[in-house]
Amino acid sequence: MYDFSADSADCARAIEAGLSDYLTGARLSGPGPAADRVVAAMRHGALEGGKRLRPLLVRQAAAIFSLPKPAALSTGLAVEMVHCYSLVHDDLPAMDDDDLRRGRPTVHKAFDEATAILAGDALLTHAFALLSDPLCHPEAEVRIRLVSELALGSGAGGMVGGQMRDIEGEKGGFSPGEISIMQSMKTGALIRASVRMGAILGGADPRALSALTAYAEAAGRAFQLADDILDVTATPETMGKATGKDAEAGKQTLVSTLGLEGARKVLNDTVTEAIQALRTFGPKADGLRATARYFASREK
Amino acid sequence: MYDFSADSADCARAIEAGLSDYLTGARLSGPGPAADRVVAAMRHGALEGGKRLRPLLVRQAAAIFSLPKPAALSTGLAVEMVHCYSLVHDDLPAMDDDDLRRGRPTVHKAFDEATAILAGDALLTHAFALLSDPLCHPEAEVRIRLVSELALGSGAGGMVGGQMRDIEGEKGGFSPGEISIMQSMKTGALIRASVRMGAILGGADPRALSALTAYAEAAGRAFQLADDILDVTATPETMGKATGKDAEAGKQTLVSTLGLEGARKVLNDTVTEAIQALRTFGPKADGLRATARYFASREK
Repeated sequence: MYDFSADSADCARAIEAGLSDYLTGARLSGPGPAADRVVAAMRHGALEGGKRLRPLLVRQAAAIFSLPKPAALSTGLAVEMVHCYSLVHDDLPAMDDDDLRRGRPTVHKAFDEATAILAGDALLTHAFALLSDPLCHPEAEVRIRLVSELALGSGAGGMVGGQMRDIEGEKGGFSPGEISIMQSMKTGALIRASVRMGAILGGADPRALSALTAYAEAAGRAFQLADDILDVTATPETMGKATGKDAEAGKQTLVSTLGLEGARKVLNDTVTEAIQALRTFGPKADGLRATARYFASREK
Repeated sequence: MYDFSADSADCARAIEAGLSDYLTGARLSGPGPAADRVVAAMRHGALEGGKRLRPLLVRQAAAIFSLPKPAALSTGLAVEMVHCYSLVHDDLPAMDDDDLRRGRPTVHKAFDEATAILAGDALLTHAFALLSDPLCHPEAEVRIRLVSELALGSGAGGMVGGQMRDIEGEKGGFSPGEISIMQSMKTGALIRASVRMGAILGGADPRALSALTAYAEAAGRAFQLADDILDVTATPETMGKATGKDAEAGKQTLVSTLGLEGARKVLNDTVTEAIQALRTFGPKADGLRATARYFASREK
């Protein structure tokens, strides 16, 4: 019987330790206090936080193909570093202008804006350094496919493009269809990349990769929908960040267009769709099933 | 007889055309005006400008191993996109706060800060997407080595780490040795990566790669030294950007510590060192020799 709480806590511990090990001045940069500053800011942006859901998806997808958990660690670290860089940059004054993240000062508050820009840039860059290392996977052919997945998932057709659309959408006038596209890019694309990267690590054939992609796209929609619902229903204390920001900013989400109950119904249907995409995989996909259910039930 | 002016102009044309072809909304992102905005900002930051010296180094290094110029194009585009992203982010108000770049408004002036941050992020990300594509090189083993070179050259131990040290150095107190380390990271690391990526594309053996690395490190020092000298001697009109900024900011360079004549002597010695590193390669290295000489003689 798969235990989501235990497995996700174990993954979070492994990622925390892996990030802490990788993000050191001795490994990443040269000697001297100036070199330590950008690494310290990278650590601030990456450590002590988050549910590490993307690395969890990487290793849950790889587990379908019996890949041991440690073999998915480097790939999980790379995906998490991209997620963390996006938060560091999104928090900047020119973007969402957030002072708090996970209950702590954001990187530009703890350091300064220039350091936060550079720390985000470096987290993104080193994600690709991690994937290029043979520790990630012994075969170059697999590693280069991971690079492609991560780059396309986080680029102008994925995460960054979604963030741009989100900013444009705040000016108003997005239809529900346009909101869906924006969200599928902003958060969906990296979730999709995480699942696909796990599958590629595990050596999935095209048919399995296609089923897992369908899972990931539904799970990504569920994740974003839950986030929009929590922005309305949760408190800043629970979330460790400001809530009610979407409404305050006049930002359109599926909650503002469908109402809270309508959005909850769509969320449940979407989780069901994600789980159905896994029907050929048997008990080895229980991890991914549990994560999709978690997306619908999470309280922060 | 190698013609530097003709070859560098040809390379700049190929890179301009290649960037313009790659940086389109239809290729990079989905439909709709919001998607076009980040791509338009990427184009503003990458097109119509620059001497494209890094892609020139890529193809000149590859030429030693008889690689045809078009086969070095994708790699050159990737290196140039990393260079351009670094300029877009360096120009931001929180960093160098520049309004002009190559005589045109910087990206955050032509668009806004959030868009400039995202466009820089996307240029960096898509550099790795380009390298992961088989169009770059048919062998995955070669492509993943290129990813590694580019990531390590532009990360916390390379370009971004150098930029962080540069900001710290403006507060004063850097010794000439610390200035050298900072410069070798800030501009030297990407020049080094460019030459090495060309050598890797060409299939250089370890001995040739080592000689080319020595060339690249000396050439990178020459490039930065020439830049520091031009900051003192050139006009904003010639450079298409503000000059005298180092002195104004109290920034220490080798010109401020050695004087103009002292710096010019070190520059000439450094170019000689770069050219000597190429002594085993014969006429196929004339391109790299000419580029090193160009670094010492350029007027903008």
